[in-house]
Amino acid sequence: MAIANSSLEPFVRSSRDAARELSRSGTAARDRALEEMARSIAEARERILSANRADVEAARREDKPPAFIDRLLLDEGRVEGMAKAVRDVARLPDPLGEVTERWTRPNGLRVEKVRIPLGVILMIYEARPNVTSDAAALCLKSGNAVILRGGSEAQRTNQAIREALRQGIARAGLPEASVQLVPTADREAMLELLRMDGLIDLCIPRGGEGLIRFVAEHARIPVVKHYKGVCHVYVHQAADLEKAERILLNAKTQRPGVCNAAECLLVDREVADRFLPRAGAALASRKVELRACPTGAALLERAGVPARLAAPGDYGREFLDLILAIRVVRDLDQALEHIARYGSEHTEAIVTEDRAAAERFTREVTASAVMVNASTRFNDGSELGLGAEIGISTSRLHAFGPMGLRELTAQKYVVHGDGQVR
Amino acid sequence: MAIANSSLEPFVRSSRDAARELSRSGTAARDRALEEMARSIAEARERILSANRADVEAARREDKPPAFIDRLLLDEGRVEGMAKAVRDVARLPDPLGEVTERWTRPNGLRVEKVRIPLGVILMIYEARPNVTSDAAALCLKSGNAVILRGGSEAQRTNQAIREALRQGIARAGLPEASVQLVPTADREAMLELLRMDGLIDLCIPRGGEGLIRFVAEHARIPVVKHYKGVCHVYVHQAADLEKAERILLNAKTQRPGVCNAAECLLVDREVADRFLPRAGAALASRKVELRACPTGAALLERAGVPARLAAPGDYGREFLDLILAIRVVRDLDQALEHIARYGSEHTEAIVTEDRAAAERFTREVTASAVMVNASTRFNDGSELGLGAEIGISTSRLHAFGPMGLRELTAQKYVVHGDGQVR
Repeated sequence: MAIANSSLEPFVRSSRDAARELSRSGTAARDRALEEMARSIAEARERILSANRADVEAARREDKPPAFIDRLLLDEGRVEGMAKAVRDVARLPDPLGEVTERWTRPNGLRVEKVRIPLGVILMIYEARPNVTSDAAALCLKSGNAVILRGGSEAQRTNQAIREALRQGIARAGLPEASVQLVPTADREAMLELLRMDGLIDLCIPRGGEGLIRFVAEHARIPVVKHYKGVCHVYVHQAADLEKAERILLNAKTQRPGVCNAAECLLVDREVADRFLPRAGAALASRKVELRACPTGAALLERAGVPARLAAPGDYGREFLDLILAIRVVRDLDQALEHIARYGSEHTEAIVTEDRAAAERFTREVTASAVMVNASTRFNDGSELGLGAEIGISTSRLHAFGPMGLRELTAQKYVVHGDGQVR
Repeated sequence: MAIANSSLEPFVRSSRDAARELSRSGTAARDRALEEMARSIAEARERILSANRADVEAARREDKPPAFIDRLLLDEGRVEGMAKAVRDVARLPDPLGEVTERWTRPNGLRVEKVRIPLGVILMIYEARPNVTSDAAALCLKSGNAVILRGGSEAQRTNQAIREALRQGIARAGLPEASVQLVPTADREAMLELLRMDGLIDLCIPRGGEGLIRFVAEHARIPVVKHYKGVCHVYVHQAADLEKAERILLNAKTQRPGVCNAAECLLVDREVADRFLPRAGAALASRKVELRACPTGAALLERAGVPARLAAPGDYGREFLDLILAIRVVRDLDQALEHIARYGSEHTEAIVTEDRAAAERFTREVTASAVMVNASTRFNDGSELGLGAEIGISTSRLHAFGPMGLRELTAQKYVVHGDGQVR
């Protein structure tokens, strides 16, 4: 395909060459490269930490919020965690070459579907430096070349990590361009990459709403979005209220800053007076701010649990914080309507002992994961048993939910015949 | 997601409402609608044919080429064929609700992957009116609403077909907006639709290079491309030359105007002098024009087979006609290089009795289908056993190769627990 001349084209072409070489490489070579990458990270610990100190100081000078600094900050434990994560990926089964289905046609043709790499993946993300090594490991394992574009605030850290990865890859004899870091953090360069249809096969953006929108708006290459999670826990009238409380507390408080944390509780009117005061008190004791509908707020108030009235914008909002929207609903129908209107197709949970209600909820709710009597926090590659994940897709196309190694592959048909013609 | 106000928004929102209703509909309701759609097409035969006569006359007045007129033209047999194709789709198994995998986690969570519809599909195509009913049937069967945007030259025919489909759907009690035709054929309307990220879930363009490029350039919604097929038949030195000739003749001449027809023959030097004169004569007798490399042209000339020298642009070109490019290659390596450079990742075939060569070819060639000792013409949903297809994807993401009913679905995770938390 025709691509306009541009400064980044040779850079991307070297990724394509690397991808071609990777697609022909064997399992052993890729796994060895991963082991070497892990070793390199461990060996480069001092250099990585010193680069990170410079990034963190700059971010502090720019008065970035503490949560931002925390995401950016590395220490010895986190660097060791990065190396371990790369080693863990090495030990996962190789997805490439897997025959996912095979059948024989009446004319004798033997048809197989075989996993192959996607090609060149552009990963766009924000402050967390561990994404650099995680994404590099998952892409290399699945035979893809990756172009990493991290946040500008982590540029020094990411360069130090990439340099370590490069050395590891080189020691294993695979192409160094298998993992590349965009040399500049400016938006123009990102725009240029997003337009390289035919050279880059997939873009995975991970980060805040603004970033995802920017990518969706400008990309001419395929994008699998990792968008926000506005996850609901719905306590049905036939719920075991003890389970419901345990699930709600976990979904809201175990790690409130992530996309599979709950943002809104829906509770059936019939059980609201028994459930809300108790669960509300437990949430309040963990410093969760409650923003409820008038009915819910009245119930909480009567029980002496601090709550305020929800503003209209509180439904459908991703707080990523110790805040919970609450709505008392009439029944399953109203809960389904609420979720269809305000949900983000990420994760939705029902708590109920009524099979028919659970069945209807799982059938009618569109979300990458629908949970029955389990925390929304289980929508995670490792928790669902896929191994490590590169993120959680909220696009229905190609991959919906956690993207593990398999979701970083395509499948081609391989057909064996004996001279068949039509 | 925020969508600018626009004239087509209410039209698309009615498709979204229909999609929601379809996603909850049962197998029986959708199959009944398909049977009614087939009946309606048969009943509306006269109206469809008369609309088609008007389109064909207009196309003749505009001096459209005969091949174009032939694609546009309907007769009684073709209309009956359309009705039958819809009925055949009704009888395929329902992809929705299929549990494609299930497993249990150590903590007792039961995980399932379940097929669901994609949502609203925008189908953009050119002159063939049967695509209108075929696409409508496949989308409705898989629970998707479809917005059809056919070529302006077939607008009257498509309106008559859509009206018949609408009546059938209404008789079965499903929403009429399940199948909609874009009310205007102008490019502005198409542009508006291509920008409706968040309202349209997938665009499938099918047609010439210009159309596909236009869509890829302007779409902000996900696109699965159905791009050109530059398919090679590679005759390896260990080929059974009789099989090779049969496969080549079939791949080139059985239906030269389609994307899985062969456009280029690669033949190993070692067997070229035995293979080319015989196969060349057979091709020439079927009126195939041969455009060969100097070595190949000399061999053909010596055998008295008419051939001309290939121009550089003849490699990598989709002739869609009785023209074949020919190149004599040194060995498998050179054939692989040629295909990597000139192929379109559509369909590639090797003819060989050497297992190792076949194995290497199937491993190293990236194409939606790789054939060993079989015609390229088998890269087709029905021939591969998927049932009807909506087209052949040359995008690696989501679907690679023929898109049947399954490829019109997504998969969500459904997780059953008993109160599990993290």
